Amino acid sequence: MDNTFVFVIFGSTGDLATNKLIPAFYHLIQDSDFSTSFRIIAIGRREYSTEGYLSEIHGTIANKVRTFNDEIWRRLSESVKYLKMDLTDQQDYKLLEESLLECHNNIGTRNTIYYFATAPEFFPLISQNLVHYGLNKLETGYQRVVIEKPFGYDLATATYYNQTLNDAFSEESIFRIDHFLGKEMIQNIFYLRFTNIVFEKVWDHHCIKSVQIIVDEESGIENRGNYYDKSGALRDMVQNHLLQMLALVGMDSPDSLSEQNMVDKKLKVLDRIRISDEIVLGQYRGYTDERDILPGSSTETFVALKCFIENDRWNNTPFFLRTGKKLDSKATEIIIEFKDNEGYMSLGNIKNNVLVIKVQPEEGLYFRFNAKQPGVMNRIQTNALDYCQTCNIAYRSPEAYEKLLGEITKGDQTLFSSWRELEISWRIIDQIAIKKSSMTVHTYDKGSNGPAASDLMMRDNNTTWMKDVFI
Amino acid sequence: MDNTFVFVIFGSTGDLATNKLIPAFYHLIQDSDFSTSFRIIAIGRREYSTEGYLSEIHGTIANKVRTFNDEIWRRLSESVKYLKMDLTDQQDYKLLEESLLECHNNIGTRNTIYYFATAPEFFPLISQNLVHYGLNKLETGYQRVVIEKPFGYDLATATYYNQTLNDAFSEESIFRIDHFLGKEMIQNIFYLRFTNIVFEKVWDHHCIKSVQIIVDEESGIENRGNYYDKSGALRDMVQNHLLQMLALVGMDSPDSLSEQNMVDKKLKVLDRIRISDEIVLGQYRGYTDERDILPGSSTETFVALKCFIENDRWNNTPFFLRTGKKLDSKATEIIIEFKDNEGYMSLGNIKNNVLVIKVQPEEGLYFRFNAKQPGVMNRIQTNALDYCQTCNIAYRSPEAYEKLLGEITKGDQTLFSSWRELEISWRIIDQIAIKKSSMTVHTYDKGSNGPAASDLMMRDNNTTWMKDVFI
Repeated sequence: MDNTFVFVIFGSTGDLATNKLIPAFYHLIQDSDFSTSFRIIAIGRREYSTEGYLSEIHGTIANKVRTFNDEIWRRLSESVKYLKMDLTDQQDYKLLEESLLECHNNIGTRNTIYYFATAPEFFPLISQNLVHYGLNKLETGYQRVVIEKPFGYDLATATYYNQTLNDAFSEESIFRIDHFLGKEMIQNIFYLRFTNIVFEKVWDHHCIKSVQIIVDEESGIENRGNYYDKSGALRDMVQNHLLQMLALVGMDSPDSLSEQNMVDKKLKVLDRIRISDEIVLGQYRGYTDERDILPGSSTETFVALKCFIENDRWNNTPFFLRTGKKLDSKATEIIIEFKDNEGYMSLGNIKNNVLVIKVQPEEGLYFRFNAKQPGVMNRIQTNALDYCQTCNIAYRSPEAYEKLLGEITKGDQTLFSSWRELEISWRIIDQIAIKKSSMTVHTYDKGSNGPAASDLMMRDNNTTWMKDVFI
Repeated sequence: MDNTFVFVIFGSTGDLATNKLIPAFYHLIQDSDFSTSFRIIAIGRREYSTEGYLSEIHGTIANKVRTFNDEIWRRLSESVKYLKMDLTDQQDYKLLEESLLECHNNIGTRNTIYYFATAPEFFPLISQNLVHYGLNKLETGYQRVVIEKPFGYDLATATYYNQTLNDAFSEESIFRIDHFLGKEMIQNIFYLRFTNIVFEKVWDHHCIKSVQIIVDEESGIENRGNYYDKSGALRDMVQNHLLQMLALVGMDSPDSLSEQNMVDKKLKVLDRIRISDEIVLGQYRGYTDERDILPGSSTETFVALKCFIENDRWNNTPFFLRTGKKLDSKATEIIIEFKDNEGYMSLGNIKNNVLVIKVQPEEGLYFRFNAKQPGVMNRIQTNALDYCQTCNIAYRSPEAYEKLLGEITKGDQTLFSSWRELEISWRIIDQIAIKKSSMTVHTYDKGSNGPAASDLMMRDNNTTWMKDVFI
C-alpha cells in the first residue's frame, strides 16, 4: 500500500492542531506500525518561519504526548513546513500550490490530505480556492478532505457546507470526523455485540428494558463561548456523538463488514428514531457570566431525553440520552438495563442485569448479575463481573486521532460519518429545536448531576440514571 | 421455630465425625445465627469417658476449625456425651434409649437426629434396633435420620438399604447427604441460571455447544482402599455428585421454589439422560500397590464420558463428565461452552463464549468474551469477566456440612437427594457397569490430566477439556 502523503492543516496554530493533530503524528511516528513517508504543511495567518512555528508549539506537544523524546520530535520536525496564508486571499493559495508541488516531488507522491481545522464558515472558501488552483483533484494519487464538527447549525447550513465540499471532492474523499467513533470502546460496541453470542441473543426488546447513553462532562465551555452559545448541547453533542452511539447500539447485524453495509445498518436505525416529548434542557448556574456568552442566553448546557427506535428489534424499548457540561464527573457510559426475570422476584433483592460499556475515562465492561449470598440463609446478592481495559499497565489505548488519521490514509470511512447519517441526525435535531422555544431551561448547580427534572423524568419511567451503577 | 434437638452420631470416632460433623457444630456455635439448644450423643465401639473422647478428638477439631477458641470448645464440650456401643448387640441400644431419655428431658425436646456415619452395611441393623426400642418414632417432636454415600453398590443394594430405612422412617424424615449440594457454587447454579435473564435466555441447545462437568481430585484413595476398590469413580463420584450437578445445570425452571417442585424438575432431567458409547475409564499407575487394593484390580480411578439430555431444551448438546483421582490439580468446574457466532468468524481469532462456574477450590464465575484488541488495527482478542467470591477477604464460604446440618434441623430437603433421584442415578450407573467388563481401563500417570484417551475423546468431539480455560 502506498503510505506516502502530504498533510495540509488549515488552522495549524489552533487548539485542534496543537492539542490533537500534531501529537497524533508524534505518536504515529513513535509507534512502529505506522511506517510511512509524509510531509505536513502547517498553514496559519501568523508570520512564522518553520523553526519559529515548531518552537512555538514545542511546549504544547511536549505536554500532550505520552513520553517526549527528542529524536521523535526531530523526525517530526523534519516533516513540517509552515506556510503563512490569509485564507480569504485567493493569491495566497498560489503559495500553497507551490509548497504542495515541492513536497509532492520531495517524497514522490500526489496523495494529499486537506485538514480543515478552522471554523466551518471557512469551508466553502477553502474548497472553492482549492478548485480554482486544481488542488482538489490532481492527475494522480488521492486528494482527501477532513472536516470536524460543527458541520453546521442545522440541516440547512449543514446541507450548504456539504454542497460546497461536494463541489470540490467526491463523497468517498470527504472524511467527517466524529472523534467518538475513534474511541476504543465505541469501536468495540460492534465487536462486543456481534462476536459474542451471549450478548447478541439478548440484544432486543424481549430482554432489554432500557438503554442509557450518558456523556457527562466535568469541564465547561472553556474558551469556546462564541461557538457554544450558538450551538448548545443538542447541536454540539447529541447531533453527532450521542446519535452515533445510539446507532451503534441499536443497529442490526450487518450482512458483511463492508463500510457501506455498516453505514446502511446505522442509517436504518437513525431513520427510525422517534424523539418523545420527554426532553429536559438545563443550563448550569453562572453560564451567562462566562466570556463570550450573550446576557440572558437560554442556550442549553445539558440535555436529557427519551427516544425510541421504531422497529421490530426495539419495539417500545426506551433509549435515554443525557449529556451536559459542568457535571459532577466526566464519564461516557452506555448502560444496557435488562428486564426483570419474572417469577423469581419473590426471592427478594434481585436487581436487573446491567451491562455497562465504559467508554471514558476508564475503558471496560461491567456486568451486574444476581447470585446467592454466601452463608447459611437463602438470600440473593448482586455481584459484578468487571473488565477494565485501561487498568492493564501494559496497555494503552491509542488516542482517537491516531486511529482516525490512520484510517484516512487508508481511505477507510467506516469510522467516519457519512453525509446521509448527518442529514438524518440534523433532521432529528431540527425537530427538537422547533420545540425548544417553548421549553423551560432548568438551572442546575455546577458539579451536580444536572437539573432535578432529569431525575424526575427517569423516575416517571420507573428507572434511574445508572451512571456509576457499579453495584 | 423449635430449634432444640438431640444429635446422635453412630460412628463418632470415624473420619466423617471428627473431620466434618463436630467441626461443623463448632462453627455453628461460633456463628451467631445458629442459636439453638442441642445435645450430641457420640457413639463408638471404643471405651471412652466423655472427657476421654473429647480429649481424643480435641487435636483434630483444633486443626480443622477456622480459628480455635477455648470458649467455643467449652460450650461444644458441654453438649457432648460419649456412649460406648456395640452396634451389633441389641442390648446396647437400651443404653442409647436411656441416654436419649436423659438428653431429651435435659433440654425439653423429643427432636432427634440420627446420623449414620458408619459403613452402609450397618444401616439395616441400626434401623431395626431403633424400631425395636421405638426410638424411630417418639410420641412428639421429629425423628430424622441422616445417611451418607455410599447408599449401596448398585440399584439392587441401594433399594435394599432404602427399604430398611423406610421401614423405620418416612421419606420426609430421611436426609441423604450429597455434600456437593451444600457447596456454595452448587447451590448458586440455580440462582445464577434463573435470576439472571442474560444467562437464562441463552441456556439451551440453540446457544450452548457443550457442557463440561469436571471434578478433578489431586488426592488419592487415602485410607479408603477397602471401600474404593469395590466402588470406583463411577459409583463413588458420578452416581451422586456429577449427576446431581448435571441435573442442576440441565433442569427446567421450576414453577415454584418448593422442594418438591425442584426435585421434580431434576428428576425430569435425570430421566432423560442417555449415556453415549464414548466412555473412558482410567486407573493411575501405582493404584494396585496401595493398601487394601486387590492385586490386579481393574477398578477405575478416572472416568470421562459423553452423555445427552434427550429433551427439547438440550437436543443434541453433549454433556461431558470427568472425574478422577491423583490428577494434576483439585478443581471442580462447570464449563458452559457457547456456540460460535457464525458470520463473524472471518474476523479471525474469535473464541466461543465460555461461562465457568468455579465450585472449588476457588468459588466464582468466569466469562470469556471477544472484544476489539486495543490499538490501531482491527483485531479481535479474548478477554475475561471474572468474579472470585472467595477472593474477598471479608468473606468466608460456610462449609457444606454447616449448611446441611442447618437444613436438617429445619426439615428442608431441598439440598438432599431424594430416593427417586438415587433410583434413577443408580439405574444409569448400572447401565454403564454392564459395559465396563468389556472396556479397556487406561493407565495414567499420577499428577497428569488423566489418560490420553480422554483427551482424544474430546478431540473427536471437536473440543477440548476446558479446565483452567481462563483465557
